[in-house]
Amino acid sequence: MTGPEIERLMTLLARLPGLGPRSARRVALHLIQKREAVMAPLIGALSDVADRVRPCGVCGNFDTHDPCGVCQDPRRDETVMCVVEDVADLWAMERAGAFSGRYHVLGGVLSALEGVGPDDLNLPALEARCTAGRIREVVLALGATVDGQTTAHVIADRLGEAAPGITVSSLGQGVPVGGELDFLDDGTIGAALRARRPV
Amino acid sequence: MTGPEIERLMTLLARLPGLGPRSARRVALHLIQKREAVMAPLIGALSDVADRVRPCGVCGNFDTHDPCGVCQDPRRDETVMCVVEDVADLWAMERAGAFSGRYHVLGGVLSALEGVGPDDLNLPALEARCTAGRIREVVLALGATVDGQTTAHVIADRLGEAAPGITVSSLGQGVPVGGELDFLDDGTIGAALRARRPV
Repeated sequence: MTGPEIERLMTLLARLPGLGPRSARRVALHLIQKREAVMAPLIGALSDVADRVRPCGVCGNFDTHDPCGVCQDPRRDETVMCVVEDVADLWAMERAGAFSGRYHVLGGVLSALEGVGPDDLNLPALEARCTAGRIREVVLALGATVDGQTTAHVIADRLGEAAPGITVSSLGQGVPVGGELDFLDDGTIGAALRARRPV
Repeated sequence: MTGPEIERLMTLLARLPGLGPRSARRVALHLIQKREAVMAPLIGALSDVADRVRPCGVCGNFDTHDPCGVCQDPRRDETVMCVVEDVADLWAMERAGAFSGRYHVLGGVLSALEGVGPDDLNLPALEARCTAGRIREVVLALGATVDGQTTAHVIADRLGEAAPGITVSSLGQGVPVGGELDFLDDGTIGAALRARRPV
């Protein structure tokens, strides 16, 4: 009823994360109805990003420059490096605005179940950066999952051998800001209790 | 931290219906990470639709042809016409597969609150199509809202004057298929009771 062009657009939209057939229809119709105001700028922005954004060869962030803006920023502390699983986590760290060093994107975490071994991650580059000199501390900002914590331990072990002078730390665990005890899982409450500190 | 190109893409994505800043970030990152598999086909499909899809001059549907596929389909009954508020409703009718006549898209409903009068809708074309001859019945498939029902009455009045030979009907009201009484509003239960029929 809608012709193959619109069907194809809806199929592709429905595969995007967070969208399904119903929201894809709404989006497609919205785009068709606002061809000049919405669809044309979106096509322009997508083409721009597709043509110009590339992964940074140093840290793995996405940017139009290589090395990326974070790696090139002279105001950032190049003696501290934050290791994250993927670019979404790097963006989350930047939004928090609490870290002003450099990053290293692993591209995943070790997972026996999903068959992700050390060779599938961006680990050699991490070791190379750490042995190259300037870095004094590596902050492992990996998820508080089994795979995330396994990966953190493996990285800590490897860096301990390859660059023994570097301090390796990981994010603190505890009650999230704004979190109520009643809604927290038992593991988080236990972790928060073990990480208790004097007031 | 992400460069103006990615920021602009995320801003445009976040304005689409059903998406917000968080889902726009997820979609943007997904597109960047799957440039060849996802982003390139999506740009192609969007450009195709932007270049080729236009509103049908007869009924108001969107298609690459004008008149659209529905208007041109010789298997469809051209003596029955279904009047809908917008193209999304036309698509919903077609998905239901229960109607095999022609359509007329109003482009909205009358609304005193939002200042939508008869001249803002596609009403003259509707009257012209109805007085031109072939149509015997007009089904008003408008929403069961105050504005939708007001619009239905105005159209019924106008068609009664302009084309008195045409039967004007509206969709039946009652319990939705699969609906449980406990979850229905009072208005629907009342409407269903008034529309009761012998078993």
